[in-house]
Amino acid sequence: MSHPYTPRDLNLEDYVPNFLSQSTILAVYGIASLLVVFLIWVLSGRSSKISKIDRWLMCWWAFTGLTHLILEGYFAFSPEFYKDKSGCYLAEVWKEYSKGDSRYAARDAGVVAVEGLTAVLEGPASLLAVIAIAKGKSYSYILQLAISLGQLYGTAVYFITSYLEGDKFAASPYYYYAYYVAANASWVVIPSLICIRCWKKICSAVQLQGQKKTKVR
Amino acid sequence: MSHPYTPRDLNLEDYVPNFLSQSTILAVYGIASLLVVFLIWVLSGRSSKISKIDRWLMCWWAFTGLTHLILEGYFAFSPEFYKDKSGCYLAEVWKEYSKGDSRYAARDAGVVAVEGLTAVLEGPASLLAVIAIAKGKSYSYILQLAISLGQLYGTAVYFITSYLEGDKFAASPYYYYAYYVAANASWVVIPSLICIRCWKKICSAVQLQGQKKTKVR
Repeated sequence: MSHPYTPRDLNLEDYVPNFLSQSTILAVYGIASLLVVFLIWVLSGRSSKISKIDRWLMCWWAFTGLTHLILEGYFAFSPEFYKDKSGCYLAEVWKEYSKGDSRYAARDAGVVAVEGLTAVLEGPASLLAVIAIAKGKSYSYILQLAISLGQLYGTAVYFITSYLEGDKFAASPYYYYAYYVAANASWVVIPSLICIRCWKKICSAVQLQGQKKTKVR
Repeated sequence: MSHPYTPRDLNLEDYVPNFLSQSTILAVYGIASLLVVFLIWVLSGRSSKISKIDRWLMCWWAFTGLTHLILEGYFAFSPEFYKDKSGCYLAEVWKEYSKGDSRYAARDAGVVAVEGLTAVLEGPASLLAVIAIAKGKSYSYILQLAISLGQLYGTAVYFITSYLEGDKFAASPYYYYAYYVAANASWVVIPSLICIRCWKKICSAVQLQGQKKTKVR
């Protein structure tokens, strides 16, 4: 059976086409994500100590953590998702996304390495960040910065390897811009903003500590 | 001309063998590194404000920064180093190192992406860390942690991609353990130790700031 991916000569024996439509796949992900955000927003609102920006950050960390753990975790450990006949939603997601980047179906080592690290390290760490913010832990900023740097590094490796290999993995310009560019853009913009914020917070804390030490002297 | 790398069927047209011996290549790198460490140790010793551990860290950042910028920077932007006929030392380094990991000569996209990021971002940032420690800047810890996380992430991608592709890129077990394992081990152990140290320092500073805020209330 032929596959819908580019390059056309990619060999994917026993490929099984999508059972679900693009709109169904996106709707399930969108609605599930909105539910998570809504839940975290409501729960975090019950504490008057948590600022609005921290509540938004909790929503982001819950959303991105569950995406890393469930979606990317499934991909990292399912080399044969494109053969799935059961209609499993997670396999459907990656069959669909591979139209924007066939390296997923082709099991490119760079993509699997980045997705594996993201799922195994950044997934649980993101959920820990939700708790760290809620409880006002002292490691909250540094944890958020560490995960965001990991996300940025992973996204950089992801884009650079594709560029070096000729940027030829999308089935059409539509899939290139909708999946490869737009879907990944959030993981460039939001981690960058979080990095800048945490960097400033940490610097001011360290500066204060330095001033205190000088005073003690 | 045949090449000394594994896998044997790797196609490297116009390959030119090493001009320098292994001991010469290693001696130049070793002596140059020791000179850098010696210079930074002496210069940093002229200030009584810099602690011994910070002086060692300055030596590390100068050594690793120059390694990233010069050695890895050359590799990242020299796709044809294995054809070099001039006896250029930097080309000799990578011709030699490719015996431990032929993906360098083969221009593997994952390796080039990681080395490119390391050279362009972590190289200059490491040299900035030398200055940041010397001047006691408030961003010193967070900068060191950010670079160390980048080094760890890069090394993880480096090892995982090789594992996923069958771990079959060393010319012999000797080169595997001497180059691929031992030479990279420093960039696992030292960044890990620096991460732990900076994490603790930052947490205690943030905690102190939190306590101060609570008192003000």
